[in-house]
Parts: sequence; C-alpha cells; structure tokens
Amino acid sequence: MTGLEQGAAWMDGRIIPVTDAAIPVTDWGVTHSDIAYDVVPVWQGAFFRLDDYVTRFLASLSALRMEIGMDRAAIEAALHEMVAASGLRDAYVAMVAARGRNPVPGSRDPRDCANHFYAWCVPYVHVVKPVVVEQGCAVWIAKSVRRIPKDSVDPTVKNYHWGDFTSGLFEAKERGYETTLLLDHAGNVTEGPGFNAFALFGRRIVTPDAGVLHGITRRTVLEMAAEAGLETEVRPLPLAEFLEADEVFLSSSGGGVIPVARVDERVFSNGRPGPVARDLRDRYFAWMGRAAHRSPVDYGPSG
Amino acid sequence: MTGLEQGAAWMDGRIIPVTDAAIPVTDWGVTHSDIAYDVVPVWQGAFFRLDDYVTRFLASLSALRMEIGMDRAAIEAALHEMVAASGLRDAYVAMVAARGRNPVPGSRDPRDCANHFYAWCVPYVHVVKPVVVEQGCAVWIAKSVRRIPKDSVDPTVKNYHWGDFTSGLFEAKERGYETTLLLDHAGNVTEGPGFNAFALFGRRIVTPDAGVLHGITRRTVLEMAAEAGLETEVRPLPLAEFLEADEVFLSSSGGGVIPVARVDERVFSNGRPGPVARDLRDRYFAWMGRAAHRSPVDYGPSG
Repeated sequence: MTGLEQGAAWMDGRIIPVTDAAIPVTDWGVTHSDIAYDVVPVWQGAFFRLDDYVTRFLASLSALRMEIGMDRAAIEAALHEMVAASGLRDAYVAMVAARGRNPVPGSRDPRDCANHFYAWCVPYVHVVKPVVVEQGCAVWIAKSVRRIPKDSVDPTVKNYHWGDFTSGLFEAKERGYETTLLLDHAGNVTEGPGFNAFALFGRRIVTPDAGVLHGITRRTVLEMAAEAGLETEVRPLPLAEFLEADEVFLSSSGGGVIPVARVDERVFSNGRPGPVARDLRDRYFAWMGRAAHRSPVDYGPSG
Repeated sequence: MTGLEQGAAWMDGRIIPVTDAAIPVTDWGVTHSDIAYDVVPVWQGAFFRLDDYVTRFLASLSALRMEIGMDRAAIEAALHEMVAASGLRDAYVAMVAARGRNPVPGSRDPRDCANHFYAWCVPYVHVVKPVVVEQGCAVWIAKSVRRIPKDSVDPTVKNYHWGDFTSGLFEAKERGYETTLLLDHAGNVTEGPGFNAFALFGRRIVTPDAGVLHGITRRTVLEMAAEAGLETEVRPLPLAEFLEADEVFLSSSGGGVIPVARVDERVFSNGRPGPVARDLRDRYFAWMGRAAHRSPVDYGPSG
C-alpha cells in the first residue's frame, strides 16, 4: 500500500495522495477560475497521444499568458513520475496551470501573480458509465442556459468555467437524462460537460466547428472516420438538423466514443447505440493500443 | 503575534492563517468553478450591512441549489469569530460555498457532491488604490471580450467565472489603464472586475439593470443619491451614451465610490474626479460609520 491507489498528485515536485492535494483559497485559480488544464488518458499502462494533449495544454498557457517555468519535457516527466507512483494502469490524468496568488496586497493586476503547475490522477473516468453506454445514452438539450460564447471565454482553451454546464446537468439529471448538451446563442449545437458531439447522416459525420473545445478525442474520431471510409464535416450544426441525424454520439477522453440513443424526446437508431457509433467506439479502444500513440509508463521493478 | 495579522480563514470550524487555507484540487469549486461567494467589508471594527450581504449570499446558495448546513446565524457567527481572531479593524471578508467533492467515482451528478462553507479575511482591499482614486481612475473598455451573458452564467449569483474580466484586465494593464469595464453583446455597459458602473447626466445617475451583479455598494449608491437629491435610473446603458456622461464612477465593496477621470480616450470632468462622485465617495465612508448599518466585532479584552 502506497496510499496512492485511489489517486496521486504532483504538487511542487512532490508526489502525494490526491486527497491531500489542495490549492490556496486566495489563488486566482480559485477566486477567478484563472486556470488552464488538460486531461490525458492512461490506458493499459501507457499515455494515449500524450504529445498532442501537452501541445494543446502549452497552447492554452500561451493564450492565457501563463509562465509555469516548465517545458514540455518537464511536464511529461512529472506526469510519468506521478502515474508510475500511483501504480494506476488506467487513469484520468489532469495537468493544471493556475494563475496563482498575487503577492501585491489588493492588486488586480494578473501580471503580478506567481503562476504554477500541478497535476493529479485518479482511476480512469468514464463521463458516461459503461452500463449506460451499452444501452445508448440519453442527452438533454439544456433549456435554461446557452453555452458561454467564445468571445467571453475561449472554449479552445480548456477551462473550468462550467457554470453553464452545471445548470444543464441539474436540468438533465432531474428529468432522468444522463447528461446535457448546450446550444449557442444562434441555436447551434456546441458541446457538453466533458465531451464533443457528432451527428451521422448516411456515411457523413458532422461536428460543430466553433464555440467548442477542439477535443483530442474529437480529432481521433475524425481520423478514425476517415479510416472507416466516412466523410467528415466540421461546421455549424443547427439543433433542428442534429435531431434529424441517423445517429448521434459524443466523444470524450473519459470514455472515447459514446453512442446516444435519445436527445430530449427524439429517439435515435431504435433507442439503441447505432452501428457506426458502435464501430467507432470499438475502434477508439483499439487505437488506444496502437504503439504510435502510446507513451508507456515505467512502473519500475515493483510495478 | 497570533499568525493571523495578515489574514485568517474559517475552515471546518477552525480558525487558521489565511495562507494555510486551501481547498482540494478535485473539489468542484475548483474543477467546475462551482462556487457562490460574497464579500462584506469590515470598517473601523464593524461589518457594514452584514445582513444585506448574507441575504444575497443565501440567495446565491439557493439559486445554485447548495446546502451548506449553516443558517444565517451560523454564517454570521463564523464571520464574527474569524474577524475577531484576526484582530483586523478594516478587512475584506469573503464567505464562500463550494459544491465540494463528488464521493461517487467519476460521477458527473452535481447532486452527489458534499457542499461546504468556508470564509477568509485579509486587510481591507481597495480594488483601485486610493492614490489612483484621488486623481481619478482610467478605465479601459475591453475590446477582445464581452461580458459572459446572463443566460450562460447568472451574474446576480456572485461567482468566480472571471475569464472575461481577466482578459479585459490584461488589455487594460498593457495600455496603462487601471482597470477594465466590459460590454454585453448588445453594446451596453455591464460591469468590471469587482465593481458596478454609473454615469451622471446633470442631476441624474444611471446604472445598468441587467447582466450585472446587484452590488450592495451599488444599492448604497442609489440610496445615497436619493438622499443627495439626485434622480436615479436603473436601465440599459449603451456605451455611446455612457461616454457622453458628465461624470462616470464605479462602486465596489472594495473601496466604495471610485471616480473615473478617463474611459478609453475620453476624458471626464477635466481629467479629475467629478464633484458628484467625490461627494458620493465621502458619503460612502460616512455611511459605513452609521450605527444602523454596523455590526460591531467583539475583539475581546485583548483586542
């Protein structure tokens, strides 16, 4: 027993149990949600597409003008060390950069803050439980909220501004739906809490272009779709068109491809996961095993 | 020396130095910015309008469906105990409710989380330094971002979704402006990081009605204005109209009434604090001394 079985964190260069990892209540990461983060999966003892996730994370830091004093190699080393220490073979791994505390009392100048990096990992998270995925997920289109627009908070910089998602989740859960999907102010489909969305029309899949995270799993889906001989389109997706799809599915680093059987009252593919979504789901777990995408964790002799 | 001179926190019923107060990195308060908070000033040994601030805080908890297991009396007792322990006579006091950790691994259901309360205080904060206020503050209208709309995140529930403000602050600081003010998507003035905005036309003051926090200091300004024989209007305030005002000023629990001498290139009241704004600023500090609004802190025999 290392005390890290339920998860570990990397804080200031030390590995500690995730339950002990905390950040100051006066850190702008808390008081201004001034944080960029990313989440990379570890599957069967290896990171999946680690370079791609870290590339996006570094782009987020740059967009928020944060300097954490660690380059790609240092970040990847910290993540490897932490996951190895945890012993977790399948993990949800978060890398986080926070604006930090402002050492100048009362200063409202973000440039004064001491930016810092931390990371944590827990056993692999499915944003929708596999037992639910098997039956096809029920998704609720949030009615009381619209997705925070991209000219307020840039969704391509992965962030913790989830107030709109949480409102949508309350709506969904109270109606017995598994999760929620948000529209933008023009009525187009955007994304949900932790996932992108796709619609299938014949042999063509469509996913929203703007106002959404450019998910690495979304990218993987587009690449897998090309391999499977599907056409792909990245463009605005109005709700009315979305509801006329042959199949609907979600993509997330927390569970891969997630078939949807129902959106509000509309039932898809006879209320079961559609064949194309099922095929892409199977492909995703196969792709996570491809050597070219894997960065194996060195768990050491005792691992 | 108590170790609390630079600030104290109330965490789980214990009073600790504010620098030791932290929340778990997996708390939804961090990972989803799922937090309601409020800030009440302590001035010359007494809370100002404490009941009004706690009333708003309780309304925020209700809107976010949080249950912290503490009623008004318990919250006020915690704040009194903490400020007394700190010994601070002039303080910025934050009360915070966070969604908490989700004990169900991987659950995305906000109803599963263990909501919790904490509080912290530091020496009184002026969101704009008094030396700057004396000369009249320079405000930059953010160009790259618009205020998060109210149908995405409700601004009347005081929250930490500050990504739009932080973008605006970077713009402002790099141009030598003190702070920033954000427009909504229709081009109306909304609010800035920690303050409401007002425009004076003759003997009439106007402040935005929607898409903003209903600040307690904003309310105090409206009440003081009535006492001073000014007319008040709470309604949409287009930027073009705002820039034609005779005077412009801000209101904040961190500093009261803050005269503005410049907005972008437009100079107000000859580049100095205007007479009405100066009068309201003086009235604010006088009002903070009125017995009806004061809840004196009992610092004990050693205080």
